[in-house]
Amino acid sequence: MPPLHACRYISALPSPAMSAPRGLVILGSTGSIGRSALGVISEHPERFSVLGLAGGRNVRLLAEQAARWRPGMLAVLDAALADELRGLLPSGYAPEIVHGQEGYEQLARLSEAEMVLSAQVGAAGLPATLAAARAGKIIALANKESLVLAGAVIRDACQRYGAMILPVDSEHNAVFQSLRGETCSSLRRIILTASGGPFRDMDAAELDAVTVGQALAHPNWSMGAKISVDSATLMNKGLEVIEACLLFGLDMDQVAVLIHPQSIVHSLVEFTDRSLLAHLGPADMQVPISHCLGYPERLGLSLAPLDLLQAGTLTFREPRTDLFPCLELARQAYRAGPSHLVVLNAANEAAVDLFLRERISFLHIPALIRRALDDHAGLSVDSLETILELSVLVQDQTRRLADSGAGV
Amino acid sequence: MPPLHACRYISALPSPAMSAPRGLVILGSTGSIGRSALGVISEHPERFSVLGLAGGRNVRLLAEQAARWRPGMLAVLDAALADELRGLLPSGYAPEIVHGQEGYEQLARLSEAEMVLSAQVGAAGLPATLAAARAGKIIALANKESLVLAGAVIRDACQRYGAMILPVDSEHNAVFQSLRGETCSSLRRIILTASGGPFRDMDAAELDAVTVGQALAHPNWSMGAKISVDSATLMNKGLEVIEACLLFGLDMDQVAVLIHPQSIVHSLVEFTDRSLLAHLGPADMQVPISHCLGYPERLGLSLAPLDLLQAGTLTFREPRTDLFPCLELARQAYRAGPSHLVVLNAANEAAVDLFLRERISFLHIPALIRRALDDHAGLSVDSLETILELSVLVQDQTRRLADSGAGV
Repeated sequence: MPPLHACRYISALPSPAMSAPRGLVILGSTGSIGRSALGVISEHPERFSVLGLAGGRNVRLLAEQAARWRPGMLAVLDAALADELRGLLPSGYAPEIVHGQEGYEQLARLSEAEMVLSAQVGAAGLPATLAAARAGKIIALANKESLVLAGAVIRDACQRYGAMILPVDSEHNAVFQSLRGETCSSLRRIILTASGGPFRDMDAAELDAVTVGQALAHPNWSMGAKISVDSATLMNKGLEVIEACLLFGLDMDQVAVLIHPQSIVHSLVEFTDRSLLAHLGPADMQVPISHCLGYPERLGLSLAPLDLLQAGTLTFREPRTDLFPCLELARQAYRAGPSHLVVLNAANEAAVDLFLRERISFLHIPALIRRALDDHAGLSVDSLETILELSVLVQDQTRRLADSGAGV
Repeated sequence: MPPLHACRYISALPSPAMSAPRGLVILGSTGSIGRSALGVISEHPERFSVLGLAGGRNVRLLAEQAARWRPGMLAVLDAALADELRGLLPSGYAPEIVHGQEGYEQLARLSEAEMVLSAQVGAAGLPATLAAARAGKIIALANKESLVLAGAVIRDACQRYGAMILPVDSEHNAVFQSLRGETCSSLRRIILTASGGPFRDMDAAELDAVTVGQALAHPNWSMGAKISVDSATLMNKGLEVIEACLLFGLDMDQVAVLIHPQSIVHSLVEFTDRSLLAHLGPADMQVPISHCLGYPERLGLSLAPLDLLQAGTLTFREPRTDLFPCLELARQAYRAGPSHLVVLNAANEAAVDLFLRERISFLHIPALIRRALDDHAGLSVDSLETILELSVLVQDQTRRLADSGAGV
């Protein structure tokens, strides 16, 4: 009767005490997750030591964060931004500033850090996440693409280097919390909830005409542009189904999805005795972020508690796979094999980018992804290099296909 | 960071493996809980050895159960019923048959038994529950009156004799499951859900006219007469609030109650980080019963899983304390002290009995209880004898008060 983490979970789990203060690196500190994380940390400054921060292009915000937390190392996208950042820092504070993929990886390996929050957007987050795994870190993982692209590689690295994964995604964090103290053999299936996105009640004609502005207005959660569009297409849920399989060692048919427009129930676990445990809470990423940052302790938050009386009515319904095919495309890609997951993710990243730049319509997103999957015959993707190469190739192909007007 | 059971929970908890087969005594085997328990056991006959069964007056059913499970000891209410039972048993099977309070206690202490399911109705269940605690058993506790009447005495016996309590009541079992693997300091409060009973939408005039038949028709759960009436008055929820305080070592204001007419969410726990964990499932007592019988393992059940799509809509609202004063009476009694809890429970038992015999109306139940509490000045109740004495006294007084027509 081994506990969950001893059998199918992707990694071992931290022992029941965090170091105090916990040394922390945040990859993606200027994004939505990174900013929430620093919010949590500012409620418990004595529990954390911020050792490194990595941003992309927003050096102004990164400089502000660095001035407050004074980490010894910062990372940005390129050398020019690094110079710009240096000029924005307060006098008397001179951290090491690194840049590019190599810089991010260096930060992820920082020897004094116990935990790395991996919160970059998209496939770009994979190399640093893998570097953290190979350095044996506790990884609070918000970058779901890392798992989708390289689940097996990360699992292998965790086993080999003693790294641990804690899921930041609210659904997987909900599952993770609901499985606490349970044994593997008790688990029947998990049910991921989905808000259904802003377009959940539209018909095909309405969907074809949606604008970027509409897609970015998520009804319940505040989040970045890419994930907002993914949420509107249900591809976000598709990626989460894949993430759940890879994280918890489940079969695809053990992961159900229900539309739950209120986003109060963040996911459920069903056991063999018909018990379900569910995680509920305010729709605020501070909750799962703090759960990971403090794990295995819970950090108190000053956030307003969920008021079930105000929440009113909770409803559940089936996702509409006819109008939102991305969820099913994700399941098909998972069943087809790891390289199809790389294709799925790359085609989606390219298509969402085209949509955000108003080059294609909303319904062209699944059409481009389906075309990319159909065109892919499968290949071995057991290294970071082959994964990233395939990813770039598919993105290029998808852009060319959209430009030519074919397949859309 | 001690786990839950190491600080405020009423007892220690079993180590992470059950003996196989688990030796079991069922007190109240012919009642609703007892019959469900034998249903669970018949799905896992290899996991249990039924060593003793105790019934009340229903010797015909007890004889059937005994013929199937062949325990070495049986108990009934009195000597005449014991003789009758003996005559109903199959030839070649001659168990020891004991009777009365002493007989029940003897069964509860049975040395070969690892676990005792305490599922008698009302205060009558206390002596045997206490005997099981003093014999160091794992007690699957369905008799909530034991805790209400003698919470401190049972806590003390658990500490002294190494007994353990597992809550069978669906709400407390839901809380217990939601607290698994958590630490004490994380707990903010618990929220017990209540169906609201069959009369939840009535006004005062309608309530005054309800019949016994209406009170026994619970909308969601199948259960005995006493608890059905308690559910209709909300006294059942009042007793559960008290039970929760005593079981989990909580303050009264850490235990909230929400009306949830669908009985899908069986209760919730709120943590300091604003996470809530909730237990959901079919409204079938087999779920919490099996959870206790197999603890710390989950026993698979063939019961139909909960279908959230069919369940439709989940709603929550405040209990109406004006029309259903029993919940507030229970909170007042708890705050007033342990002897007030004995008075509360005794007056309620007598009043429900009077209502079931159509001697008083539905709204007279809280009136009689309030009167009994008002008349009680408080006294020390640290022994089983004083508790049972006070209980009998208050029941007599309540009956006399009803007969005289005063106070109702």
